[in-house]
Amino acid sequence: MTQKADTKFRREADRGSHEYELACEVLDAGKVCHVGFTLDGQPYVLPMAYGRLDDQLLLHGSVASRVMKALASGVPCCVTVTHFDGLVYARSTFSSSMNYRCTMVFGTAREITDLNEKRPAIQALVDHLMPGRRVDLRMSTPKELNATSVLAIPIETFSTKCRTGPPKDKKSDLDAKVWAGVVPLELTAGEPIDAPDILPGVEPPDYL
Amino acid sequence: MTQKADTKFRREADRGSHEYELACEVLDAGKVCHVGFTLDGQPYVLPMAYGRLDDQLLLHGSVASRVMKALASGVPCCVTVTHFDGLVYARSTFSSSMNYRCTMVFGTAREITDLNEKRPAIQALVDHLMPGRRVDLRMSTPKELNATSVLAIPIETFSTKCRTGPPKDKKSDLDAKVWAGVVPLELTAGEPIDAPDILPGVEPPDYL
Repeated sequence: MTQKADTKFRREADRGSHEYELACEVLDAGKVCHVGFTLDGQPYVLPMAYGRLDDQLLLHGSVASRVMKALASGVPCCVTVTHFDGLVYARSTFSSSMNYRCTMVFGTAREITDLNEKRPAIQALVDHLMPGRRVDLRMSTPKELNATSVLAIPIETFSTKCRTGPPKDKKSDLDAKVWAGVVPLELTAGEPIDAPDILPGVEPPDYL
Repeated sequence: MTQKADTKFRREADRGSHEYELACEVLDAGKVCHVGFTLDGQPYVLPMAYGRLDDQLLLHGSVASRVMKALASGVPCCVTVTHFDGLVYARSTFSSSMNYRCTMVFGTAREITDLNEKRPAIQALVDHLMPGRRVDLRMSTPKELNATSVLAIPIETFSTKCRTGPPKDKKSDLDAKVWAGVVPLELTAGEPIDAPDILPGVEPPDYL
């Protein structure tokens, strides 16, 4: 394991972990990551859909995309997945906080070009992003596969940081007559909205 | 305006905007951003709470934090705010997509040290993160202010990208007998959870 990225926890080390299972748990619970890389000295951070196949984090995009090309060229990158779990209302501004789970994966991307590896990778992406959906869709055509770039980043150098639980106020603030606690937050799905060109009689599937 | 970051839209240019008002709208609708910067050739992407005061994006953290120090030193950074608004179920894997709003702000951070600027900046942060909360909390102490680093990044070089609406399927897929549409997603607040050490009779405030 070549660990170039500095993943040592210096502050709030009790919130940090290098455990592989925990990292996968945080990764598997999300659908959008933020990918960071630098081009010509300028950092860029872009939201991207992602998936996971064993110990590989998967990204995909158009082969025409500048970002996919940059990542495929082997520039170092950082892929971060964050769940914003709650607002922590303490009795002071200073002790107020947020609950979250965050995993950062460091490395360089490898483009998956072999179709024997690319098809299962795309399947893993679809299964991650839209569980249950794949059986309803036709096979991707060779043209579509060629137009799609799939990148794999090994989940090898990573770190996870989480905050959970109630506010931790200073003792001297505990007698303040102000509410304290946590407002939990969750990404929630609303009612499915039919496409305007949907065929008559086609209902939303159970996997939604 | 020194524009070093490349904010030109090359692909899906119809989804892109450089409009200031739209950028502020996207920024104001979120609470967690992803901050990207590079140290020793390695990009890092970290989730951080943020606020906005006029045309300044505000970050805060411990003065002891390595990240705050790095940002304050003037390294180029990219601050990205993303709202994941929905999963777009098309009739093919290829046309499946996501609805989102995303604003990226490029620049370098300036540390706010003057207390006359720092206090209002911290107030703007609290008002953004926990609207209505500030009047209930005591003033920050000089010690707390000294322990908090506040950074400002001008909202000057930025870009916004959004996708909204239904799937855009290929014509040849429109007769597939499969449901298509959008599953909207939203970050939703749950019931407030009292801190275990809350004083008896203190109820959750209306601003929650």
